[in-house]
Amino acid sequence: MADRGWPDCAKSLKGVVLDLCGVLYDSGEGDGVAIPGSIEAVQRLKTSDLQLRFCTNETQATREKFVAKLQRLGFDISVSEVFSPSPAAVAVLKQRGLRPHLLVYDGVLPEFDSVDQTNPNCVLIGDAAENFSYQNLNEAFRVLMGLEKPVLFSLGRGRYYKETDGLKLDVGVYMKALEYACDLEAEVIGKPSPMFFQSVLSDMGLQPCETLMIGDDLVNDVGGAQHCRMKGVQVRTGKYRPSDERHPTVTADGTVDTLAQAVDMILAQRGH
Amino acid sequence: MADRGWPDCAKSLKGVVLDLCGVLYDSGEGDGVAIPGSIEAVQRLKTSDLQLRFCTNETQATREKFVAKLQRLGFDISVSEVFSPSPAAVAVLKQRGLRPHLLVYDGVLPEFDSVDQTNPNCVLIGDAAENFSYQNLNEAFRVLMGLEKPVLFSLGRGRYYKETDGLKLDVGVYMKALEYACDLEAEVIGKPSPMFFQSVLSDMGLQPCETLMIGDDLVNDVGGAQHCRMKGVQVRTGKYRPSDERHPTVTADGTVDTLAQAVDMILAQRGH
Repeated sequence: MADRGWPDCAKSLKGVVLDLCGVLYDSGEGDGVAIPGSIEAVQRLKTSDLQLRFCTNETQATREKFVAKLQRLGFDISVSEVFSPSPAAVAVLKQRGLRPHLLVYDGVLPEFDSVDQTNPNCVLIGDAAENFSYQNLNEAFRVLMGLEKPVLFSLGRGRYYKETDGLKLDVGVYMKALEYACDLEAEVIGKPSPMFFQSVLSDMGLQPCETLMIGDDLVNDVGGAQHCRMKGVQVRTGKYRPSDERHPTVTADGTVDTLAQAVDMILAQRGH
Repeated sequence: MADRGWPDCAKSLKGVVLDLCGVLYDSGEGDGVAIPGSIEAVQRLKTSDLQLRFCTNETQATREKFVAKLQRLGFDISVSEVFSPSPAAVAVLKQRGLRPHLLVYDGVLPEFDSVDQTNPNCVLIGDAAENFSYQNLNEAFRVLMGLEKPVLFSLGRGRYYKETDGLKLDVGVYMKALEYACDLEAEVIGKPSPMFFQSVLSDMGLQPCETLMIGDDLVNDVGGAQHCRMKGVQVRTGKYRPSDERHPTVTADGTVDTLAQAVDMILAQRGH
């Protein structure tokens, strides 16, 4: 399969990994809205012979809460199929004996209940949206500047995402802000970290070359997957912008209008 | 003088340029507080045969307002001696026919009263402190993303400054945030822009090698001045940190405890 392009490569696939926001649905007021055709597309993948996982950098709520939201929107999806940065971060913090100062969305705080947060010796930021006030960012900055060896974790490095009312700044922007302020480099947990993609592959028991990632973020979904030798296809929904198709460093294996179109093409290649 | 080190070089100086915050005073509640000895140090320079100017990236208030503050603190200083980024920015905007979306401190808005701000075709940020809310930064981001040729001006590129209650994030941090979000490079107005230092030299009618900059910011004051072939001395007040003295790229011509000590050394070299 290594030398097969899209959509020909679909013949030898064994698994598909889907980003959530911008691929399955657009976030916004309330639960947001499903992208047309995506509910059926997920269903068709589920009833095919392909393994299916979901890989998101969403950190606005606990995994349980946002999976429940997706179920309300009509998606057939369960918590065990979803990989998100917070549980991965909890594992890293415990393993290294680190006590985080958290700057995250209120809704994701329960994910960190089991982690000691007294007398912080690192800072962890997620998409905090309105919680990224000047005061909160300054507080995180002061914690870092007060540490002999400052450590900053960022749950993703996305630039922006799309809600129903427009583009919104993502965690990567604030990661860059703190990196510059403190003259350090953050450790990214979540896409495009190879470790994060690898955990999904391990769970499926598949090789990268047997697996396709579909996302709306050219750099973090497509580029991140390709960096791990997975195939990467971009959808023209969510945060997609036409300029992505002439990006200087990342070229998707394929670009499709919607997840529904991608699934049509994959299943057609496989003779369904 | 080119081959003379500090403080020997003081013999052939014709002018001195002082940063304000962190050199003359520490900002904070109310007017802030004068740094011990600095009021007399300014006075001694004024009564010497050296020309004196003040060069600041302060953009929290109009020049008139913060000069009045310095006068209340006891400094002998007038508006015409002070160079700050806002008037320089107004000149650039008018010259290039640009209409800014402003994200600045409320107090500095009057400086831009003469500039057309309807239907913005660029974004200009200054130190906006609490005005750097998520919503305001996102609005600036959306304006930039909506422009065919996005232009971002930043009044300085400082990482942080020191107030009486601790370190505070400066405009450069938010400049980096928007640069990353929009994949562009900002145009900096103010220190360390060579054009900004040049405007001070022109006003004094002096050559760079005849002029010394004294500041607390190693990169923007000292490095910026040295880049223009001025001498640069750092004070151990304000945002100074011991690690500045082993900075990988910028080495001050001299480092002194306070402005008062620098002035003592300069005047001693000159036989006063």
